[in-house]
Amino acid sequence: MKAISVLGSTGSIGTQTLQIAKEFPNQFKVVALTAGKNLDLLIKQIHHHRPEVVALANENDLPELKERLNQLKSREKDFSNFNPHLFAGSEGLNIAASWNTADLVVTGIVGCAGLLPTLSAIQAGKDIALANKETLIAAGPVVLPELKLSGSRLLPADSEHSAIFQCLQGTPWPENARLSTGIPTPGLKNILLTASGGAFRDWSAQDLKNATVKDATSHPNWSMGKKITVDSATLMNKGLEVIEAHYLFGLDYEHIEIVIHPQSIIHSMIELADSSVLAQMGWPDMKLPILFAMSWPKRIETPWKKLNLSQVRKLTFLEPNTKKYPCMELAYSAGKTGGTMPAVLNAANEEAVGLFLEEKIHFVNIPKVIEKACEKHKQDLKSDPKLNDVIEVDKWARKEVRSEVQKHSHQMLIAT
Amino acid sequence: MKAISVLGSTGSIGTQTLQIAKEFPNQFKVVALTAGKNLDLLIKQIHHHRPEVVALANENDLPELKERLNQLKSREKDFSNFNPHLFAGSEGLNIAASWNTADLVVTGIVGCAGLLPTLSAIQAGKDIALANKETLIAAGPVVLPELKLSGSRLLPADSEHSAIFQCLQGTPWPENARLSTGIPTPGLKNILLTASGGAFRDWSAQDLKNATVKDATSHPNWSMGKKITVDSATLMNKGLEVIEAHYLFGLDYEHIEIVIHPQSIIHSMIELADSSVLAQMGWPDMKLPILFAMSWPKRIETPWKKLNLSQVRKLTFLEPNTKKYPCMELAYSAGKTGGTMPAVLNAANEEAVGLFLEEKIHFVNIPKVIEKACEKHKQDLKSDPKLNDVIEVDKWARKEVRSEVQKHSHQMLIAT
Repeated sequence: MKAISVLGSTGSIGTQTLQIAKEFPNQFKVVALTAGKNLDLLIKQIHHHRPEVVALANENDLPELKERLNQLKSREKDFSNFNPHLFAGSEGLNIAASWNTADLVVTGIVGCAGLLPTLSAIQAGKDIALANKETLIAAGPVVLPELKLSGSRLLPADSEHSAIFQCLQGTPWPENARLSTGIPTPGLKNILLTASGGAFRDWSAQDLKNATVKDATSHPNWSMGKKITVDSATLMNKGLEVIEAHYLFGLDYEHIEIVIHPQSIIHSMIELADSSVLAQMGWPDMKLPILFAMSWPKRIETPWKKLNLSQVRKLTFLEPNTKKYPCMELAYSAGKTGGTMPAVLNAANEEAVGLFLEEKIHFVNIPKVIEKACEKHKQDLKSDPKLNDVIEVDKWARKEVRSEVQKHSHQMLIAT
Repeated sequence: MKAISVLGSTGSIGTQTLQIAKEFPNQFKVVALTAGKNLDLLIKQIHHHRPEVVALANENDLPELKERLNQLKSREKDFSNFNPHLFAGSEGLNIAASWNTADLVVTGIVGCAGLLPTLSAIQAGKDIALANKETLIAAGPVVLPELKLSGSRLLPADSEHSAIFQCLQGTPWPENARLSTGIPTPGLKNILLTASGGAFRDWSAQDLKNATVKDATSHPNWSMGKKITVDSATLMNKGLEVIEAHYLFGLDYEHIEIVIHPQSIIHSMIELADSSVLAQMGWPDMKLPILFAMSWPKRIETPWKKLNLSQVRKLTFLEPNTKKYPCMELAYSAGKTGGTMPAVLNAANEEAVGLFLEEKIHFVNIPKVIEKACEKHKQDLKSDPKLNDVIEVDKWARKEVRSEVQKHSHQMLIAT
């Protein structure tokens, strides 16, 4: 439970802060309120949050506030022993801003009027949810040294600076929970894998019947090996990535989603518990993710081409077409089954893509032979496999696909 | 300097890894290579990187590799004492994958063939740059317990999983450098502030001459206070945010950019030293950044509306029009001047916006009176101000703007 002071409680930031405190009563407790002229709203806020201290900007308004509080106390029995400390004027705001019991001070006073109370809170060593940007703009050179002295921390509440702060922070809590170890990071809710849509993203399901090896090995955005380029065309690549993400980041399959993003600029996203989404972007070039894996935890300075979003102009998104791309569903299903099933899916797919590249099976039959192998494996599924089990089912699935294609060699070349 | 092993060095991931090692010779040293059949390329790689150990997938190819290495040794004097350890076959790959001197193993072998060597590297406790997704897909239940046992860390090199990993990580190094204290986070190169474009984003510069208070206080995306809504319309809000970002995140003004993003879904971005860009997204609702400032470092589970990019459909970007919006340049200039100048800019702007809301000055004259006040302040600039200096110039600037507007009250109401 965090104890919160709200400076400027009746303004836009203040009222939203109090809405949040109201929505999450187990997380936040309001101990101090300061306001300007809107006594009607302030009284309502006092009524709900029962702060320890209230301060008004203007001394002349103090008698009316006292009068209204007395009315409240006589009207509602529940409030008869409610006696918040009341202050007013510049000194009063400072007292409320540095109130002893507060952990965090939300500074919602607009303009330069917010500077002095914010400075008081900083000098008192409070953490600051900074919505009053004037504190820094007008008095940056004064405020920064004070932060160092008091150990106060600025947590930007402006949407832009919060975005930057969130990007810098990632998922900071707890410190050691951000590695991909199969255990979900606290606060991570959903993974959103982006997919370019592959070679056939602009083809209709009907047109896929005419797909050739040349068509399937021409990726619109990425330059990659042949096998993975075909996997992109079937979207099996994305399905396999769903399973990989499940093991790396520890989320259930219901929390791993696919979104089609033809420009391949956003390489994937995470959705956090509070609904915030973080995305990583760059030109489609494998060198960048490889470099980060090599340089982690540092970032190495590169002279590589800067991402220019004004040049990209637009990023588009659409839901994946599961009918056109049955491989996605096959992968989700194999992932959910777990055990040796993903190994069968993967081996059957490798074999089917190999046969496709050898022109022994038509593009649209790739998912069909994979599905058949997975179906057949159900009776032999091992739910807690050892390495040998994995190697064995891998061999079995390849053999199974090869013999299936051989058996129906004519049909396999026809899209039905 | 990190010592790197590359499994599958002649494949797509392997060659890119070696390009990176070549481009950053002070960061990476290649100690082990494994390859399949492309001996021509492998010899070139050995020639450049001089690894300690080389392993081939196929034992039958080993004599040819030895022969070629002997040719190299006799041809180039520099290589006469170069005697890398040579291995082949499945066991050979495992030896190279777990090579003693390596810090990091990049697993670029496509398909299930990569599983066993990757597992060897994991069992040897190496950090793994994981590009071989089959390791997890086929053998997730086998690999995850091994990671725990050996302390090996998986660093995803797939672009999608790297994106997720980067979003989780933020800027992880060093641990304590991610707070907004005015000292730049290592690896942070540029800040990209997004701007909706405000109330007049679809108006021409000419049309602005007809702008009224009602027009300027209707924000297309955000519901905010009046003053800040006018600041959005002049883009002074973005200019002030540039100054705020400078103080919060410690970057020079040349490294803080503005990009117009009409949908206000990306709330801002950071560009990292290696050219990777991280973005934070959400619906335009101040509750989210306020909540994160309140809940930091935790994320609190909310029932708030999930961001749905397929529903948003597109995000667009364009460069800001500095002619139409002179306030941006005024802010950059005041920021670069520093000292008391941003305080003057801020106070002059507050006063000018106040006068605009009182209908005493036309919208297009807001930047003009601010510029005049800043110009006039140059002679009294304090470069290392104390709190009193800030408060004094704030008062001075307000008075200055008021008297300027009074003096030219008729012209001030006309857009020229």
